Amino acid sequence: MGNSDYVYPSAATEGGGECLHRAAIPPPQPFVKSLKNSLKETFFPDDPLRQFKNQSAARKVLLGLQYFFPVLEWGPRYRLGLLKSDLISGITIASLAIPQGISYAKLANLPPILGLYSSFIPPLIYAMMGSSKDLAVGTVAVASLLISAMLGAEVSPTQNPTLYLHLAFTATFFAGVFQASLGLLRLGLIVDFLSHATIVGFMAGAATVVCLQQLKGILGLTHFTHATDLVSVLRSIFSQVDQWRWESGVLGCCFLFFLLVTRYFIGELKKGLNPVSITDLVMVSPHLSIAIKTGIITGVIALAEGIAVGRSFAMFKHYNIDGNKEMVAIGTMNMVGSCFSCYLTTGPFSRSAVNFNAGCKTAVSNVVMAIAVMLTLLFLTPLFHYTPLVVLSSIIISAMLGLIDYDAAIHLWKVDKFDFLVCIGAYAGVVFASVEIGLVIAVAISLLRLLLFVARPRTLVLGNLPNSTVYRNVEQYPNAGNVPGILILEIDAPIYFANSSYLRERIIRWVDEEEDRIKVSGDSTLQYVVLDMSAVGNIDTSGISMFEEIKKILDRRGLKIVLANPGAEVMKKLDKGKFIENLGHEWIYLTVAEAVAACNYMLHSCKPNPETDEKTEAWNSV
Amino acid sequence: MGNSDYVYPSAATEGGGECLHRAAIPPPQPFVKSLKNSLKETFFPDDPLRQFKNQSAARKVLLGLQYFFPVLEWGPRYRLGLLKSDLISGITIASLAIPQGISYAKLANLPPILGLYSSFIPPLIYAMMGSSKDLAVGTVAVASLLISAMLGAEVSPTQNPTLYLHLAFTATFFAGVFQASLGLLRLGLIVDFLSHATIVGFMAGAATVVCLQQLKGILGLTHFTHATDLVSVLRSIFSQVDQWRWESGVLGCCFLFFLLVTRYFIGELKKGLNPVSITDLVMVSPHLSIAIKTGIITGVIALAEGIAVGRSFAMFKHYNIDGNKEMVAIGTMNMVGSCFSCYLTTGPFSRSAVNFNAGCKTAVSNVVMAIAVMLTLLFLTPLFHYTPLVVLSSIIISAMLGLIDYDAAIHLWKVDKFDFLVCIGAYAGVVFASVEIGLVIAVAISLLRLLLFVARPRTLVLGNLPNSTVYRNVEQYPNAGNVPGILILEIDAPIYFANSSYLRERIIRWVDEEEDRIKVSGDSTLQYVVLDMSAVGNIDTSGISMFEEIKKILDRRGLKIVLANPGAEVMKKLDKGKFIENLGHEWIYLTVAEAVAACNYMLHSCKPNPETDEKTEAWNSV
Repeated sequence: MGNSDYVYPSAATEGGGECLHRAAIPPPQPFVKSLKNSLKETFFPDDPLRQFKNQSAARKVLLGLQYFFPVLEWGPRYRLGLLKSDLISGITIASLAIPQGISYAKLANLPPILGLYSSFIPPLIYAMMGSSKDLAVGTVAVASLLISAMLGAEVSPTQNPTLYLHLAFTATFFAGVFQASLGLLRLGLIVDFLSHATIVGFMAGAATVVCLQQLKGILGLTHFTHATDLVSVLRSIFSQVDQWRWESGVLGCCFLFFLLVTRYFIGELKKGLNPVSITDLVMVSPHLSIAIKTGIITGVIALAEGIAVGRSFAMFKHYNIDGNKEMVAIGTMNMVGSCFSCYLTTGPFSRSAVNFNAGCKTAVSNVVMAIAVMLTLLFLTPLFHYTPLVVLSSIIISAMLGLIDYDAAIHLWKVDKFDFLVCIGAYAGVVFASVEIGLVIAVAISLLRLLLFVARPRTLVLGNLPNSTVYRNVEQYPNAGNVPGILILEIDAPIYFANSSYLRERIIRWVDEEEDRIKVSGDSTLQYVVLDMSAVGNIDTSGISMFEEIKKILDRRGLKIVLANPGAEVMKKLDKGKFIENLGHEWIYLTVAEAVAACNYMLHSCKPNPETDEKTEAWNSV
Repeated sequence: MGNSDYVYPSAATEGGGECLHRAAIPPPQPFVKSLKNSLKETFFPDDPLRQFKNQSAARKVLLGLQYFFPVLEWGPRYRLGLLKSDLISGITIASLAIPQGISYAKLANLPPILGLYSSFIPPLIYAMMGSSKDLAVGTVAVASLLISAMLGAEVSPTQNPTLYLHLAFTATFFAGVFQASLGLLRLGLIVDFLSHATIVGFMAGAATVVCLQQLKGILGLTHFTHATDLVSVLRSIFSQVDQWRWESGVLGCCFLFFLLVTRYFIGELKKGLNPVSITDLVMVSPHLSIAIKTGIITGVIALAEGIAVGRSFAMFKHYNIDGNKEMVAIGTMNMVGSCFSCYLTTGPFSRSAVNFNAGCKTAVSNVVMAIAVMLTLLFLTPLFHYTPLVVLSSIIISAMLGLIDYDAAIHLWKVDKFDFLVCIGAYAGVVFASVEIGLVIAVAISLLRLLLFVARPRTLVLGNLPNSTVYRNVEQYPNAGNVPGILILEIDAPIYFANSSYLRERIIRWVDEEEDRIKVSGDSTLQYVVLDMSAVGNIDTSGISMFEEIKKILDRRGLKIVLANPGAEVMKKLDKGKFIENLGHEWIYLTVAEAVAACNYMLHSCKPNPETDEKTEAWNSV
């Protein structure tokens, strides 16, 4: 390893000026400007205003409209070839939307016809404003159940059905307001915390749950649990073995027969489109607060489901959805919906999966569904008096099975065990508890990983690659050799309060271990500790104190600390925190190679305090 | 900047072998071994077993005992010179412990004498096992209030005082078990999430709150709110203006006078040491569950206060406390205490602050306090029938005022605005709500910062420093020049699900902007995008998908993606995720300089697919 002594630092090779030997402190920026920059990077990473630059006023208006109404962008490019696919998928989801809407409205203790109303207006709004091509709009079971639980606790749906109905509209309105505000406040970044692994687990779990729910239709049961977890469903099924319709088991063979045998009674349905309900919104006490509370809670849950579902299918088809736009679109469709006799809608998993499987191409399938529902409302409602549940169930199950992505789960296991854990967490949470608990578990495990990464960063020992000025991790490059008298460490994460005491201990332990090793091997004694800061993206005040403490400890042991390549943000903070002053700017180098060269010069000339000129001279004389 | 073309990569200068041109994939490690390593780094960063290596059996036993009983380490080195300081501070805190203990016991609806018992046994245990030199052990207001609220809801302290008392002992026992388990499970890393900024804010807030509480004594009020927030305290004070003892206002002038005027009636106190209460622990239903619940909740809160306080004073005196040891020590003292008529104790802020101010040097001050309390219990309890509260209040207030660290807050504002926000959050939370809410707010803001750092990492454009092979951020080094036809980006954080869609958008936007710039300036067209991965500590499956998508997008636009210096962990994941296969190992370079040299060679020889031999030849011929 001796040949790595006195390595000539590359940066100085061709007579570079003094600036090259110094890690620069970036030019100072006014606080307001840097705050503005970081807010922009945080909330407007897509820079939505960029395309508006240097455009005529008319074009600006058009672009602005296109931003809020993506239909203006893709609509003009819509070709008839796509219509065929959208028509098929739209009609398919309409055939699902009608019975599903009716049963979810019953779950929410609302008149069944509301389920149909809710599949008419909101999909039209979403088709104009949404950025997903696969999301099918409709009501969802969880939100329906929550509405009946929360509002029902205050107003009885049987004794005071009108007030209950009006409160449901009001809650929907506030859910919409809340959802759209999140989007307008650019909080779409919340969506980034739903990872690929979370979604794989979530989809498989949701598919399992939806399949289990279909056992009701398949077995022809009339009583069934409203809970969605595995245990409740299995208990519900096996507690009524005598009620099983074994005929349903041979479903594939005699499909039509069952259209007559298994039926679902839903009561009278009136003809006619959605009545206006804007005047029904309850904006006065005493029930306003429960409506707002219900709105916010169901709104968040519906939003999480809608965006997770939208993201899942976008991932399948390799396009992007914009979280902020989605929030505004879903919020607006609920606000408008609440004025036209609709209750809370979002993008339900089952309906979107059927839409995707039926080959939808654009949001036009939502329009087709809305038109089909409209025609039903105008002419066909009496026909839906009897709904063949078994057909519905078989459509849903076949769509679901394709969504349990074993291969993706195996891939996660192979590449990243932690991601696999997240995926299994989401799956088990959805199957054994509920959709929200599954999401919460997966997000919590994912966040824990981020926190652990920051709380326990790796510190790597660097060695010199033979015949070069490159210093790399000795574990990754086993031929990298250590430099006598100098310990080179790389810190692999930002230095924050959460890791500063760990890093202090870990760095001191590296030094202890190196000294132990030297004692045994009889190498030259340790005199310099070079810290490669290339990977330290940021530092806070705890981190600066940590450096001060390390410096004190190493000073006491006669060791000198040297920094290599701190980034702009870190230099700024170290300068403001007076650590550069304390350490001496001459002990901060641009590259590890230069730091090592300077240390080597000191080691061999035994001078404790380097002067740049002397160093350069020494280097030039090698 | 033309002179940076064809820069000779330094690593190859001296005839380095092929290995130098390839970023190495680290040798594969069995899953169990890598899991073991990362668990060790996470939970045993201090490597507590290291000192046991190569030691005799007897020495091992001694070291083991010293680990759990730090007194065995510092005890033999204890000098008489320290005793004077410890004696003074011990007696000072004893004089505080007696009235404080009595009033907190009353808060908990327990017999007043329990406050004295609790200042006798637990401090002795802590002195042997604790690692803080400044923590003074005793009961705390918040936990006392919680005990009375939680247990009192199930058992009335007036109608069934014996059962209530026994349940309090049982809850204390379970609090101790829970606290010690957290320590034994090595979850001390929770403590790392209390940052310097949090503690500065928390201490200032707590000092403010404690000062406000002393207004009771200063103004000689007999009725006072049990709440600790600013609003409640001020309302309580100003609602009884007629009760104010204006005499107290001139406290400083005629101290002794007030010893006679202002008094506090506390009822009978029996002589004698703690009776054994181990047989009083309630280990059977029906009240076991409430005792366990109370124990866990009060235990966590007491632990948070004790460790935050211990850490604060350790920071003042520049020593470390070990979170895991502290948890075991505090847990043990509560388990033992519950067997000797003590209820929940921890390190109260006010008492520790007085201890610190009185100049304590070691945990011996706790022993002195315990002895003083013991003597009081044996001989002096009747004297404490009248406690001069005004003296107590003035001692506490003077200690508190020194703990509001304006300078630290100003320093935070100057160096790091975000840390300042955390500090103010903690302060406002403590003053306007409660100690726990303040802690929660500060920790939440701190975590949010970590998450934002990961969710919105910076991407930096690198340029070539003149006459060198060093590439650095052009913002930090304005003289760094861009290389025609090549865009060099550095990613500044691990690539996780939380930032992968952001990074994809951001990188594509950099490419767009660079192409726009080139269109205007007429420079040579962009052909290569070099991503410097030095600062990317880790990657998950979402990150790998992100790279695949970027590659697809850039391929479509005729751009080639090149990676420079991915670390060991990243190389391993990219390899397992088949991205290296997809990209081609020849497009991953050890340094940015080598990547740029290869791209330049391609640019000028117009060959789309590099062969290492050709490259080396080309470089050598420059």
